[in-house]
Amino acid sequence: MKRRSFIKKTTLASVGFGLVDLNPLVGNRPSARNNFSVNGSRLENRILELAKFGRNVNGQGYRVAFSSGDIEGRAWLFELMKNAGLETRRDEAGNIIGRRKGKNNSFKPIAFGSHIDMVPDGGNYDGTLGSLSALEAIEVLNEQKIITNHPLEVIVFADEEGSMVGSKAIAGLIDPGMLTQISHAGLTISEGVRSIGGNPDLIANCKRNKGDIHAFLELHIEQGGILEFENLQVGVVEGIVGIDHWEVTVEGFANHAGTTPMNIRQDALLAASKLVIAVNEVITGVKGSHVGTIGKIEAFPGAYNVIPGKVMMGLELRDLSTEKIELLFRNIEKRAETIEHNSKTKITFVRQPSVSKPALTEKSLQQLINKSALGLSLTTKFMQSGAGHDSQNIAQIAPVAMIFVPSVGGISHSPKEFTNTADMTNGANVLLQTILAVDRT
Amino acid sequence: MKRRSFIKKTTLASVGFGLVDLNPLVGNRPSARNNFSVNGSRLENRILELAKFGRNVNGQGYRVAFSSGDIEGRAWLFELMKNAGLETRRDEAGNIIGRRKGKNNSFKPIAFGSHIDMVPDGGNYDGTLGSLSALEAIEVLNEQKIITNHPLEVIVFADEEGSMVGSKAIAGLIDPGMLTQISHAGLTISEGVRSIGGNPDLIANCKRNKGDIHAFLELHIEQGGILEFENLQVGVVEGIVGIDHWEVTVEGFANHAGTTPMNIRQDALLAASKLVIAVNEVITGVKGSHVGTIGKIEAFPGAYNVIPGKVMMGLELRDLSTEKIELLFRNIEKRAETIEHNSKTKITFVRQPSVSKPALTEKSLQQLINKSALGLSLTTKFMQSGAGHDSQNIAQIAPVAMIFVPSVGGISHSPKEFTNTADMTNGANVLLQTILAVDRT
Repeated sequence: MKRRSFIKKTTLASVGFGLVDLNPLVGNRPSARNNFSVNGSRLENRILELAKFGRNVNGQGYRVAFSSGDIEGRAWLFELMKNAGLETRRDEAGNIIGRRKGKNNSFKPIAFGSHIDMVPDGGNYDGTLGSLSALEAIEVLNEQKIITNHPLEVIVFADEEGSMVGSKAIAGLIDPGMLTQISHAGLTISEGVRSIGGNPDLIANCKRNKGDIHAFLELHIEQGGILEFENLQVGVVEGIVGIDHWEVTVEGFANHAGTTPMNIRQDALLAASKLVIAVNEVITGVKGSHVGTIGKIEAFPGAYNVIPGKVMMGLELRDLSTEKIELLFRNIEKRAETIEHNSKTKITFVRQPSVSKPALTEKSLQQLINKSALGLSLTTKFMQSGAGHDSQNIAQIAPVAMIFVPSVGGISHSPKEFTNTADMTNGANVLLQTILAVDRT
Repeated sequence: MKRRSFIKKTTLASVGFGLVDLNPLVGNRPSARNNFSVNGSRLENRILELAKFGRNVNGQGYRVAFSSGDIEGRAWLFELMKNAGLETRRDEAGNIIGRRKGKNNSFKPIAFGSHIDMVPDGGNYDGTLGSLSALEAIEVLNEQKIITNHPLEVIVFADEEGSMVGSKAIAGLIDPGMLTQISHAGLTISEGVRSIGGNPDLIANCKRNKGDIHAFLELHIEQGGILEFENLQVGVVEGIVGIDHWEVTVEGFANHAGTTPMNIRQDALLAASKLVIAVNEVITGVKGSHVGTIGKIEAFPGAYNVIPGKVMMGLELRDLSTEKIELLFRNIEKRAETIEHNSKTKITFVRQPSVSKPALTEKSLQQLINKSALGLSLTTKFMQSGAGHDSQNIAQIAPVAMIFVPSVGGISHSPKEFTNTADMTNGANVLLQTILAVDRT
């Protein structure tokens, strides 16, 4: 949501240091309870330092999970966490977990963190921002000599960009066949987990039960362009979308493109094109932040001089609601039936097994994030996450919430991925204030 | 054109043998001047005999140009032509040419024929019907002891389905680089020409000049479904279409299919789909027998979860008129500009060098074919050829005309290619009567 239209984006100076002195709106803050904030320079410097691990000879980042860059980066972060006074260990899945005692250690911990592995040729902010901001929150609490009521836990998950083995292991979602699959680095997941200090044979031991974690918070770059497009500073994530895939086949009749008149053709590509447009119309014709994409297409036989007899496409639908996805798909099927009839083709949809179910975040945590952001005079928007995150697995065993900050140009999974220092600092401050707000509830 | 609606398709019995006795309409024939006709059984038997050459172990036809099947089939036909009394030779391009003397040998010859090579896994009628019907016409003239005024020439061209080297050589259209290209059989065209008895070094010698051939006639299967669809027996070909190809590129912006809202996408496939439909609308929105096809498409990067950033397609337009092709293309360009504007994409068309210019047949010859067909109580239609033929090359140096007979299901370049004996016999009779009609003019 937009707070007030006259609020401009805050600068690094205004949010990072001396917030109380510099921000004219501070007297109006709905929940301002302290005048400390994260050290934006320290956060940014650590992000840039971590970015050096795993660079290839072209200077590109290949810190894919279980690569030498990932192993070295995790060791570097492990040391920083220890130096920050955290009781730091690696669990059986290779997750790094740093614990900070609270006033009441019978309370369940407030956990927060993210991941530091990247996709091949990825960027420096995806996962990294959330992991290093979690450490930054600890640094500030140390500096301010604040002891929270709950114990705190910084978690740096294993292989988010591939198997999500780290968060799945904690949530008890490990599929037996998963460990033998090949990771981005070429190792099996099992070998990879071992390479970062885990023990795949005992991986079931790191599972937490429902109630073991008081709350889990994850700060992340948006990876989309909505916040930038709407000129907003903080996204309050309502949930992580479910994903469904269908293989779509359009069957017409291949024939000579020179000798077959237009009126007796059964052109599979013409029918497929109508379906691509129909999918777009169905998606944009219903209110909501669901998305639908046809990202791949192939025509057979695929020559200038042959009318396509068959077209294969890939359809993806994403939404927070499984029912919404089903409704959209039924509407697409109906449109396909009309196209089939009018074009004398046959259209079939085969649902793919690799679905991901929607994961909702906790409403009370969303409200605390929003209040914390507003308290920092930041503009906010309640939004969904179109991409997957470790939080979606932790949501199976604990209340979770996510904080988004803008991605410049909406670009992610690319060396061009970028988030401004001011926006990163804003996000880390919201994380810090939300941890304290959760601790007070 | 349809002659009279009550005329049904003639049967083999009615057209092949005893036409005068059996056909009740014979008294009304506009140009009936003789009561002999081709031997449909002999024609069909020869087609089936030729079909045995070049069959692979699966029984499929692979009599591609310069293969052993093509070489053996040509040798078999050469003997048949010699046995029919033709002065038979191979020219420098490997074309088989059989000459029959006329009453006045200072007259330029009336030539007719086709080819016997096929596409890989092709059918038994494409080219073969025209070649063996040309021989059949000679057989009937021999049987009827008819000597024409003009000398006659049966021509069986070399490699129609690939380089068209035979008809191009006669028309003086050999491009120097052409002979080093690889044929369907794997030989260079030069090696191939040598393998069927030609001499590529002297290929320029077989060129004929304008005026050297009085007329050239080619009987061919339609390779499309128009005659069958309209229940007609003979097509009078008005010309062989020109063909133009464009590589079409649609550039949008590739982005995450989960995190990019529908309203800020620049989806290249959505724009490309609109263009596919626009092309179809432009083609079908203008009267005529032109055709337009998008036969190939590829989306980049081509994954379920990425909005396509680029799409490449192949556009083909065919018509008898170059001006019509240009008009259609300009209309497509205009539609593309609107799509570009509305979808924030960039669409570019790159014309490909491999164009084929339209070739018109001679109007007076068309009329003689039509008259001959009507004289045989056959239904006719003036139509274009959407496929290429040797006649399009010969049209550069001589008046040409083509006779089409129906292809069952409009199927060609396939083992399923089929033309009924009755239709083949009709076509051969029209060829015979047209030769005699041309000879009289």
